[in-house]
Amino acid sequence: MNGARALLSTLVESGVDVCFANPGTSEMHFVAALDEVPQMRGILTLFEGVATGAADGYGRMTGRPAATLLHLGPGLGNGLANLHNARRARTPVVNIVGDHATYHTRYDAPLESDIASIAGSVSGWYRVTARADDVGADAADAVAAATGPPGCVATLVLPADASWSESDTGPCATRPKVRPSPAPTELVDQLAQVLRSGEKTALLLGGTSVRARGLHAASRVCATTGAMLLGETFPANLERGAGIPALDRLGYLAEFAQAQLDGVQHLILVDAKAPVSFFAYPGKASDLVPAGCTVHTLAWPGQDAPGALETLAEAVGAAQGSAIPAPAARPDRPTGPLSPATLAAALGAALPEGAIVVDEGNTSGLFVAGATAGAPPHDWLTLTGGAIGIGLPAATGAAVAAPDRPVLCLQADGSAMYTLQALWTQAREDLNVTTVVLANRSYAILNMELQRVGADAGGPAARRLLDLTEPDLDFTALSQGLGVPARRVESAEELTKALEASFAEPGPSLIEVPLPQSLG
Amino acid sequence: MNGARALLSTLVESGVDVCFANPGTSEMHFVAALDEVPQMRGILTLFEGVATGAADGYGRMTGRPAATLLHLGPGLGNGLANLHNARRARTPVVNIVGDHATYHTRYDAPLESDIASIAGSVSGWYRVTARADDVGADAADAVAAATGPPGCVATLVLPADASWSESDTGPCATRPKVRPSPAPTELVDQLAQVLRSGEKTALLLGGTSVRARGLHAASRVCATTGAMLLGETFPANLERGAGIPALDRLGYLAEFAQAQLDGVQHLILVDAKAPVSFFAYPGKASDLVPAGCTVHTLAWPGQDAPGALETLAEAVGAAQGSAIPAPAARPDRPTGPLSPATLAAALGAALPEGAIVVDEGNTSGLFVAGATAGAPPHDWLTLTGGAIGIGLPAATGAAVAAPDRPVLCLQADGSAMYTLQALWTQAREDLNVTTVVLANRSYAILNMELQRVGADAGGPAARRLLDLTEPDLDFTALSQGLGVPARRVESAEELTKALEASFAEPGPSLIEVPLPQSLG
Repeated sequence: MNGARALLSTLVESGVDVCFANPGTSEMHFVAALDEVPQMRGILTLFEGVATGAADGYGRMTGRPAATLLHLGPGLGNGLANLHNARRARTPVVNIVGDHATYHTRYDAPLESDIASIAGSVSGWYRVTARADDVGADAADAVAAATGPPGCVATLVLPADASWSESDTGPCATRPKVRPSPAPTELVDQLAQVLRSGEKTALLLGGTSVRARGLHAASRVCATTGAMLLGETFPANLERGAGIPALDRLGYLAEFAQAQLDGVQHLILVDAKAPVSFFAYPGKASDLVPAGCTVHTLAWPGQDAPGALETLAEAVGAAQGSAIPAPAARPDRPTGPLSPATLAAALGAALPEGAIVVDEGNTSGLFVAGATAGAPPHDWLTLTGGAIGIGLPAATGAAVAAPDRPVLCLQADGSAMYTLQALWTQAREDLNVTTVVLANRSYAILNMELQRVGADAGGPAARRLLDLTEPDLDFTALSQGLGVPARRVESAEELTKALEASFAEPGPSLIEVPLPQSLG
Repeated sequence: MNGARALLSTLVESGVDVCFANPGTSEMHFVAALDEVPQMRGILTLFEGVATGAADGYGRMTGRPAATLLHLGPGLGNGLANLHNARRARTPVVNIVGDHATYHTRYDAPLESDIASIAGSVSGWYRVTARADDVGADAADAVAAATGPPGCVATLVLPADASWSESDTGPCATRPKVRPSPAPTELVDQLAQVLRSGEKTALLLGGTSVRARGLHAASRVCATTGAMLLGETFPANLERGAGIPALDRLGYLAEFAQAQLDGVQHLILVDAKAPVSFFAYPGKASDLVPAGCTVHTLAWPGQDAPGALETLAEAVGAAQGSAIPAPAARPDRPTGPLSPATLAAALGAALPEGAIVVDEGNTSGLFVAGATAGAPPHDWLTLTGGAIGIGLPAATGAAVAAPDRPVLCLQADGSAMYTLQALWTQAREDLNVTTVVLANRSYAILNMELQRVGADAGGPAARRLLDLTEPDLDFTALSQGLGVPARRVESAEELTKALEASFAEPGPSLIEVPLPQSLG
């Protein structure tokens, strides 16, 4: 068999059986080998940012990497923004980047590019396969590296001749799984003492600790000791809803986060980073840890964070039933004009059990978290790295990962335009995604930020760069052009009905929700 | 004034008065300063690949850089593919990449990213501004570096605090212009001897030598000495049409180029690279220079290539009037079904004088060059770096650069989907662009390449990754969704009429041309 087939077989053997692809000539042997390794599902995307964002969504849902198939440096570049988000989410992803044949590199052909530098900016693991005989082992190493723990983006560069040449070694066996390490007893005892000290203490949960198991344990700790339970601003995959202890996420705005952390004397990080301001602002703090607060770490990324929380709960003497689950509650079906508030109520009223919510709603989604807090249990995926354009692709990947669950994509209009091509893949693969485009017709967050950075000008030239009118984007036409049925709603009642209808039907659909430009 | 204003004033002073922008929070002071420096025209794009491709098109038309405004590493990443094309075209471009405030970097906030590595892969010049007092000088240096000769992508990283802090030094004066160096007399005499030797000789023109002046001089040389006149496969901006000597471009397929070069004993490069195969193929040559052929260089990039050709023409004793201009000729208005042949004839019949053709037609555009060879003089911009998705953005930038000229964008459907957002900017700026989408509903070039690389499988799984049906893309809906009027034509007659109507009207429009999936 050739290198391409050895690669595909190794990936499948190692549990990677989905590949989000946007191939070019140097990847043609990989593409041809798909027919020989039918266990691998090749999914075409029309743009690499869709492929990488879908791999992020898939990996967040399954904990296993999907592969991407990208075309040299420019293809990797097109996928870079969503790989940045995946890196921040610690999502396992295996990039296969096709390259020129090894002997062709010296001719500096038009597509010759510095793949190593581009990949280095987002990859936790990087290797160039030297020859077909190495492809299997390299692929097995890539999957192991991507899987972690913690997960990372692993990038394997596949020269065309390594792909088309005969591999005498063939596929390679899976690498052994690595277990996350437990928290040391001494550390747990020390943190239990901190929690019993009477000083104001907060747990800050992130990464792998924000699933139901970790949240239950953390809630037991907090209920028993009086500590605050906080979460990272942008979790990779938060489990929430009725019956699951609620996580109070730190605010995006530094002022909000500072208010939440006010007076905290001990901050215990659980697979989370110490809080910092998302951006710098003139005269404002970057480091959001209160003065005099001691920062502790219960679990680093790659350690067993839920297990550490359970051990800590035992150490503080928390009873098994002491966690405080979120009560079941849904807002009333809203009536009247569309606004961030009625949008939130409609989502809260309609969200089905087991939903996967991909949240790139930005400013327009302000009230959605509150309105869905008591909905049936669901997953919540956010924009971990701040590189906009993750929503539609991640929803695509999540739907591939969990075909029996409804996916809701809350998508701000400005961000939607980065990777709108994802809708076509949703149509082709008949994915169960409801996209709600929050059409406030502006980069509303930038209008806010323009004030916050102190740039008080904001004259007409500046405003025009933050405004999405002239012409208005018609998302129903765009969606239909990509093969996804779409409608625009004009009232809260219509929205709720449209959501219920979409959740009840298989396949993708899009709902455009016109919202006022200003916040509120 | 603050650093942002010093930057904008310096750019304008240095002749850079257009900025294709996709800003984020760290760029808000730059955005705010646009109202204080009204000579700078800020043009919003909905995706960074549009901004960088537009800057490429603008720079190819004017020889002067446009600025881009990009948001940290992910924004630069989104623009990377078209910067790759600009690098290959040696287009002057000045990227302004906003970054976190210098003191914020150490906190590794979510958008912290390795801008240097990403930028390094495409930039001929790179600098991080350290403080507001340096911004002006850094910007002047960036413009000088980008302008060249030869042109290059210059990337200036602008930390937010350098942007918002007071600049005591203010704007900086323009750097002196650098003149391209002439060809040494000795070299010209030596090459004149080669040309008179009777051995089979070819001139290979690229870069700055493929404008009318260089083509006239080269044609005189060839008419006088019997040398062949060849051009690079993918010129940045070729001047052509009736009255201008025609350039026989090397074929994209190595076999074609090899046939063109067969028997050549001397190859004289004029701002061009020695020919290499675009991709490697099993058992086929990468280096396309015939065995035994001596490669000479009349002008390197950055040297005065048209001047060198004129000196060479004199040295071989070519008379002033000896150049062979292309005769005026237009195909008859075609009739019948749409095909690559009737498409080409329609374009040849309708192309207006002074048109700017941005050609990302790929396989479907096979016959267009022939059918337009005798059309009134026009410019022809191609995909220099092989990173697809340049067409719509470059057409946008070219239309900004030359508002009084009609722009024709020949756009393959697969490639169109990478940067379709450009249409919205065309609508907002009311740009005079006619986009012709060549809708063969496949990555046709990959179907061909699948055969050529020797991957003879091409089973259903492979074919599905190269096919753009299920669902069909509806380009008229997509275009209308982005604010650009569009229509689908069904015959050659309709196409010709639609082209004429679009060229006669101001503002953008799109024509979808359904074509058969297979070549021919």
